[in-house]
Amino acid sequence: MPPIRVAIAGATGYAGEELIRLLLNHQHVRLTYLAASAKWERSTSVSEVFPRFAGRLDLPIESLDPARLAASADAVFLALPHGESMRLVPSLLKAGKRVIDLAGDFRLRDPSLYPQWYAFDHAAAEWLSRPEVVYGLSEFHREEIQRAKLIANPGCYATSVLLACLPLFAAKLVEGDQILVDAKSGFSGAGRKPELAADMAENLRPYKVNHHQHMPEITQEIHQMTGRTSRMAFVPQALSIERGLISTLFIKTRAPLEAVAEAYRVCYTPEGAPFVTVRVGSFPQLRDVVETNDCQIGLSYDAAMELLIVMSALDNLTKGAAGQAIQNFNLMHGFPETTALR
Amino acid sequence: MPPIRVAIAGATGYAGEELIRLLLNHQHVRLTYLAASAKWERSTSVSEVFPRFAGRLDLPIESLDPARLAASADAVFLALPHGESMRLVPSLLKAGKRVIDLAGDFRLRDPSLYPQWYAFDHAAAEWLSRPEVVYGLSEFHREEIQRAKLIANPGCYATSVLLACLPLFAAKLVEGDQILVDAKSGFSGAGRKPELAADMAENLRPYKVNHHQHMPEITQEIHQMTGRTSRMAFVPQALSIERGLISTLFIKTRAPLEAVAEAYRVCYTPEGAPFVTVRVGSFPQLRDVVETNDCQIGLSYDAAMELLIVMSALDNLTKGAAGQAIQNFNLMHGFPETTALR
Amino acid sequence: MPPIRVAIAGATGYAGEELIRLLLNHQHVRLTYLAASAKWERSTSVSEVFPRFAGRLDLPIESLDPARLAASADAVFLALPHGESMRLVPSLLKAGKRVIDLAGDFRLRDPSLYPQWYAFDHAAAEWLSRPEVVYGLSEFHREEIQRAKLIANPGCYATSVLLACLPLFAAKLVEGDQILVDAKSGFSGAGRKPELAADMAENLRPYKVNHHQHMPEITQEIHQMTGRTSRMAFVPQALSIERGLISTLFIKTRAPLEAVAEAYRVCYTPEGAPFVTVRVGSFPQLRDVVETNDCQIGLSYDAAMELLIVMSALDNLTKGAAGQAIQNFNLMHGFPETTALR
Amino acid sequence: MPPIRVAIAGATGYAGEELIRLLLNHQHVRLTYLAASAKWERSTSVSEVFPRFAGRLDLPIESLDPARLAASADAVFLALPHGESMRLVPSLLKAGKRVIDLAGDFRLRDPSLYPQWYAFDHAAAEWLSRPEVVYGLSEFHREEIQRAKLIANPGCYATSVLLACLPLFAAKLVEGDQILVDAKSGFSGAGRKPELAADMAENLRPYKVNHHQHMPEITQEIHQMTGRTSRMAFVPQALSIERGLISTLFIKTRAPLEAVAEAYRVCYTPEGAPFVTVRVGSFPQLRDVVETNDCQIGLSYDAAMELLIVMSALDNLTKGAAGQAIQNFNLMHGFPETTALR
Repeated sequence: MPPIRVAIAGATGYAGEELIRLLLNHQHVRLTYLAASAKWERSTSVSEVFPRFAGRLDLPIESLDPARLAASADAVFLALPHGESMRLVPSLLKAGKRVIDLAGDFRLRDPSLYPQWYAFDHAAAEWLSRPEVVYGLSEFHREEIQRAKLIANPGCYATSVLLACLPLFAAKLVEGDQILVDAKSGFSGAGRKPELAADMAENLRPYKVNHHQHMPEITQEIHQMTGRTSRMAFVPQALSIERGLISTLFIKTRAPLEAVAEAYRVCYTPEGAPFVTVRVGSFPQLRDVVETNDCQIGLSYDAAMELLIVMSALDNLTKGAAGQAIQNFNLMHGFPETTALR
Repeated sequence: MPPIRVAIAGATGYAGEELIRLLLNHQHVRLTYLAASAKWERSTSVSEVFPRFAGRLDLPIESLDPARLAASADAVFLALPHGESMRLVPSLLKAGKRVIDLAGDFRLRDPSLYPQWYAFDHAAAEWLSRPEVVYGLSEFHREEIQRAKLIANPGCYATSVLLACLPLFAAKLVEGDQILVDAKSGFSGAGRKPELAADMAENLRPYKVNHHQHMPEITQEIHQMTGRTSRMAFVPQALSIERGLISTLFIKTRAPLEAVAEAYRVCYTPEGAPFVTVRVGSFPQLRDVVETNDCQIGLSYDAAMELLIVMSALDNLTKGAAGQAIQNFNLMHGFPETTALR
Repeated sequence: MPPIRVAIAGATGYAGEELIRLLLNHQHVRLTYLAASAKWERSTSVSEVFPRFAGRLDLPIESLDPARLAASADAVFLALPHGESMRLVPSLLKAGKRVIDLAGDFRLRDPSLYPQWYAFDHAAAEWLSRPEVVYGLSEFHREEIQRAKLIANPGCYATSVLLACLPLFAAKLVEGDQILVDAKSGFSGAGRKPELAADMAENLRPYKVNHHQHMPEITQEIHQMTGRTSRMAFVPQALSIERGLISTLFIKTRAPLEAVAEAYRVCYTPEGAPFVTVRVGSFPQLRDVVETNDCQIGLSYDAAMELLIVMSALDNLTKGAAGQAIQNFNLMHGFPETTALR
Repeated sequence: MPPIRVAIAGATGYAGEELIRLLLNHQHVRLTYLAASAKWERSTSVSEVFPRFAGRLDLPIESLDPARLAASADAVFLALPHGESMRLVPSLLKAGKRVIDLAGDFRLRDPSLYPQWYAFDHAAAEWLSRPEVVYGLSEFHREEIQRAKLIANPGCYATSVLLACLPLFAAKLVEGDQILVDAKSGFSGAGRKPELAADMAENLRPYKVNHHQHMPEITQEIHQMTGRTSRMAFVPQALSIERGLISTLFIKTRAPLEAVAEAYRVCYTPEGAPFVTVRVGSFPQLRDVVETNDCQIGLSYDAAMELLIVMSALDNLTKGAAGQAIQNFNLMHGFPETTALR
């Protein structure tokens, strides 16, 4: 079987770099085109930007040319800042390409949410609710992903929070309509932007409390599963380390712990969810998951408070971005789900 | 006025080192005796253990000798592992010394709590409820501290959580009886113990979830203020940085934000609480408080959820340990509260 | 005695922030004017930029206005990017102000060196060699500093290297004319610029090897002391931590270790050099000096190789910048050298 | 072809963990036995010690049993503290096993050096100079490694320094007999020992200056290549990050830069040395090599000083330990050199 020709737009960002790193080990993929954002001025070799790929990949990084993007590849990963992929996707889909978009442009079904959460009007609103556009939370949409043309790859916080709470919603065990989340992410979660390095050094910094753009995709997914509207309190914080994300969820439930644990086991069987592990009574630390595509979930229940504490750890660049994107690519193409991810 | 002669037991730990650092700038203090824990084998110069104090303090660090501890000083700071100060305090108090204990030995009034939370039976249980023994949360017990003989200096998490929620309890604005806390501390919070350095490198590690020993002193203080028994969900986590602590509290309240903000303002006036700052609508980061004795508190209210988010940041070694200890020392001796802390 | 009125230009950079932190403890100083660089758009309170100074300093940070700078103060600290102070200094000196310049603008006597090392032509070349302009290496120019009008405060690497080797040159113990230096600095040494935070995370990064701008001030000082021209190999590297600097020097000498040690002892007596400590046979680590104005020097001699290894550690923001600047300020004004620095 | 059965002794250390991580991707290897050091008390699952291997490796970690070690495997990696493998190797070799030893026990040919550098008398001295025992610097001993029974895998510093200087010695371009080295390593280089985490946090710490045990293997290799005795000044330092190692070498040479560069090119062709890259005029940073088996070398020459600066960067756990060990394993078994290392 000839390899799938794959292009990456946004190859110089964190997620783009992680895509290159992982896809170099994918036996069915040949990278054919690497594009940086429009501001990139000249063609540069990969090894100049990322010396660690020297000798392993002989491709230039070029300014993004939409025509070449379509012509060069069978499948396209878009790892661009929010608001750019909505201008590229329609023509890629019309040209018959499979697209995995790591930005937020196609995650929300309701176009009216974009001005509020992303500060732009959507330029391709008619695509948001088409059946070939699928929210790529691999563990919960496996079959739709297999048939999809465009994957809206979930946000890193959304992946962490949804994997932590959807089994409970699926089992109708959540009391009330509130989920309270305190989440901490490595600073790479915000993308490769010039920052004051000092803000990152030895710090913990809350930001976008209760108005982070991953919130509406979380409540949208809960609504799709339950038909209910939930309310979310969300406290994201940037850690002074590069990679990794842990979320703590406080969820009201009256179910006994055994019923709760069973709800997670049903959703995450070893065969059906090879990257998700659930522990009862202990909690994951970041080092358990960094540089893997795994999500580890820990549970603790306080019967007197009728309160479940769930902690969910993953690597924001892997399961929270490039790894899950490749997992979805594998599902779309009928490859084993773990290809290039183990 | 002659300086107060001050001894430190536990001088080689994090809190002991911070006490030395701060007290070297205290104009009314003369350090007279530095003792390490019992395992210390021989007398060593301070500058051998802490080269940064070279030339500024000419004292040996010695094995702890209780008789010399009492003889050498007018006031004693105990910065020992939990369970050691309860054996030293009675004789120090009988000898008329003022004592500030940074361990947990005298924080809980009910001796029956010690086996559960500290894994020891209390050896001086009769002292726990005496009036001259005061829980040293400076901002809330100023007058008792001025008359105290023994200060049970609060735990770092407890300081952070109590400063964040007591104003709301004082104003009777808390709905229900639950407080949910996700807290992150620099690894120095666990004391200077040999650890696998790898566990600290680039990590975030939950530990003692719902069974950390600072929990009962928090509920004890809330009970003392309100007469009510509260329930607490508590998720402490170790950051891979040395200093600093941030707590996120989710608290149910139906009060409008302005009433909430007023409750904090009443408790923390600039004159009455020089180290506590409250912000509405924004949140502190660790760098705002590290190496200061300040506690910064941020508030955000979601009316639809009837939920207040409070974040409280401090330096676990300063306001969470040695700094608050010196603040209490200043109150006990009638010095301005900020002496040596600004 | 009324306090000295002090202004800081460049108050928002690392060195500016450190100047504020230290000068708040200087009993003879009143801060009167804080200016950011010209790009600063509006007046902002100090506590908005640096929340940790909230409640301690009630001054705005303003755009730099040269007229107000001169009018507001008796003494001025300039902590601006290289190339800006040469335009401000002449009028400040003519107005009778004492100036301490933390940039490189007045460190080199020979104006022809500026295009090569700083990439600008000097706009005030006639001032470079005037007697009232003094290179502020406190330990070696104490008397000139007392009479100076303008201090060219040494670079952080230059301070570290010169304190490490000048005693040996003074004693005429250096064989040949070469000094080989490998130096590592916290990233704050490069100033508070937007950077890719990723470049700082978990990294060690060589930069400007053999063409760092601190090299000519080092060889200039050696020449002034010995009359000899020396050659320097210099490998600066950025650590992924914020503060601290260690230099390793390899120096040829045939003197026995005792003669070498004596050369250092003569230069750095406890009275004459309260911030410099010399150890024979052991070496300082960064933690020994961070957040102090100390420089710790360690020596090891290999007789067979006729080679001395010298390591010199300091905090690049304190002894390497703001601390030494205040040390020089103290010398200029007749205050004890350690005022506000202990 | 059936897979090679492989055992790891010392599986819980840093190098052991890295061996597991890499060998899980080796298509010709089946892990059959994982042993910790003798102190390990009970058999534990890999996933309990290293949760990130959960689901990928179903082996216990057991106390080291020499008989089982020999019986379980065709090839054995020994990643034990120095001084343990010399007691295990003779019987393993007699049983016909291929052994790769990551400790220092078989690196030095002269047994009389062990008391001085490793503080033990060698218990298997007669093996040190046998032809089937080979120093495993892959790039310089490829053919001997292919025929070897026991590989003495080089130390991390030694690998970095030797790859940086041997081409110059091979081309007889070194002037004099001295090499001066300043080297910095992530703290994992010292092995997984309980440490004061504080000593690692935000620090740079010199240790074992001029008496590190990697020095004699460096001079031994230079002597073998040149017949000359060299002298080395060596300043190792521990970085407060986990992985990565950079060495700076100052080497005297009169050869022009082009001749120097050619000497490196001859030694490190793309085919003959797939993991070594040489740059002229620029230098590698740690991030270029971390988590790879690559060694990147940068060169800069100062003609007036007749001095070459060489910097060499690698990951101390990969090319400096487990990666080079697998590279040698591949050479011994006739697999492509890069198997499981790309």
